[in-house]
Amino acid sequence: MKLMRVGEVGREKPAMLDSDGKIRDLSAHVSDIGGEAISPEGLSKLKALDAKSLPELASGRIGACVAGTGKFICIGLNFSDHAAETGATVPPEPVIFMKATSAIVGPNDNVLIPRGSEKTDWEVELGVVIGKTAKYVSEAEALDYVAGYCVSHDVSERAFQTERAGQWTKGKSCDTFGPIGPWLVTKDEIADPQNLGMWLKVNGETMQNGSSRTMVYGVAHVVSYLSQFMSLHPGDVISTGTPPGVGMGMKPPRFLKAGDVVELGIEGLGTQKQTFLADR
Amino acid sequence: MKLMRVGEVGREKPAMLDSDGKIRDLSAHVSDIGGEAISPEGLSKLKALDAKSLPELASGRIGACVAGTGKFICIGLNFSDHAAETGATVPPEPVIFMKATSAIVGPNDNVLIPRGSEKTDWEVELGVVIGKTAKYVSEAEALDYVAGYCVSHDVSERAFQTERAGQWTKGKSCDTFGPIGPWLVTKDEIADPQNLGMWLKVNGETMQNGSSRTMVYGVAHVVSYLSQFMSLHPGDVISTGTPPGVGMGMKPPRFLKAGDVVELGIEGLGTQKQTFLADR
Repeated sequence: MKLMRVGEVGREKPAMLDSDGKIRDLSAHVSDIGGEAISPEGLSKLKALDAKSLPELASGRIGACVAGTGKFICIGLNFSDHAAETGATVPPEPVIFMKATSAIVGPNDNVLIPRGSEKTDWEVELGVVIGKTAKYVSEAEALDYVAGYCVSHDVSERAFQTERAGQWTKGKSCDTFGPIGPWLVTKDEIADPQNLGMWLKVNGETMQNGSSRTMVYGVAHVVSYLSQFMSLHPGDVISTGTPPGVGMGMKPPRFLKAGDVVELGIEGLGTQKQTFLADR
Repeated sequence: MKLMRVGEVGREKPAMLDSDGKIRDLSAHVSDIGGEAISPEGLSKLKALDAKSLPELASGRIGACVAGTGKFICIGLNFSDHAAETGATVPPEPVIFMKATSAIVGPNDNVLIPRGSEKTDWEVELGVVIGKTAKYVSEAEALDYVAGYCVSHDVSERAFQTERAGQWTKGKSCDTFGPIGPWLVTKDEIADPQNLGMWLKVNGETMQNGSSRTMVYGVAHVVSYLSQFMSLHPGDVISTGTPPGVGMGMKPPRFLKAGDVVELGIEGLGTQKQTFLADR
């Protein structure tokens, strides 16, 4: 299933895409896409619905694909060729950091370049949405705790991240720096999360063109690993790292400015398109 | 006012302490201690109530003093003498990192030492609870956005934090590593947040005995600073750093083991007491 949230900010309705690409209203069945609705039991109930019999929703703004995210966890330097372009080496175990959940926006919402920013950068990432509370789970069972996947844009301010007194979260958490969606694609539709094409363009020019195949620590490993440090809860999102081609890795580096348009996508998970604007 | 939440996990009732130290039920007036209830308008309404006319609640488990926390932000190395004991220098601007909100527990709940932990450590901190959305606010107006203060125990696993491939959040986010409370003390009761005694004992032995007076970046500065990077929302909690006396700074270092009892408090904000147990 492709689950989504459609409507103005804070008033999104839960919905699903039917096989003809029409948006179907799930309001009569779940209060939102998150929590219980994306548990294994919740997803089974949704799957049993006849999508084409549900009321059609007009297309409009698409919200973040999941509601009630308690943690937005990112994996750093998780593609060996991306680590190389940033001058770092692949870490001996996953690097984790947090993005503020207040950064989450819809996949096509405008992204605001914060005041004082000169190094706003892009990162297409595979997002993993947790569907069931996970604590101390093994790698073999880790995917049982995953509801599905989404496109995640880990927008990053490099000066805030690395030149402003330590800890990356400072450059990762600005408002609008976390577009996720358009869809939460349930895991039954993704045969292999470690073999998905990933791409990102700035003003039509391809900047990132990679695959989750070159991820160092795969989805199952990451879910298991994180669950050794903290419980993962339904609605939590893990952004699993970016392939090469970010602006800070270019010679000379390139960063985003007001008016730039970024498009990105992952095979089977849909696309995002954001216009970058100066935050006034 | 001293606002609190009383009851079993997930079923806490909003309450306030009256001038005789009795717990008064606020359920008829607010749904919880958080969001609108702790906005300037919400607090004014609560202040207008006659506390002693409210139903009395039996004392029982005390929950975290605020509900619906979207961000749990910590300031690192914010006491010059604590920075020195850890071998670090005072940073040129605040170091910020996130603690998972899933780590939040009540002030007297048991704290679980995670599997594999050998370096679980203590940190008494002044917690700041946001009451109104703050973005790009000046230091002069910053306290207008603060609802009040609480005791915050920033429990930390030092090996996870510093020896396990970067970014402190890994050692700060374990389940139960974030006791906050017992009370959200509204800011009108705290004449000067930069002059509060802070202490922590392990098994009755004083380990930390400091004051918010020696904080490098004070509350107003920190709120203003953070708001340049991200919006702060009602219910967000900022833990502002710890005075000297943590276990990792001792020679030799001392860490917590199952059965240890930690008590901590801040002048005017109440006390906490936790038993540390092994997480099975």
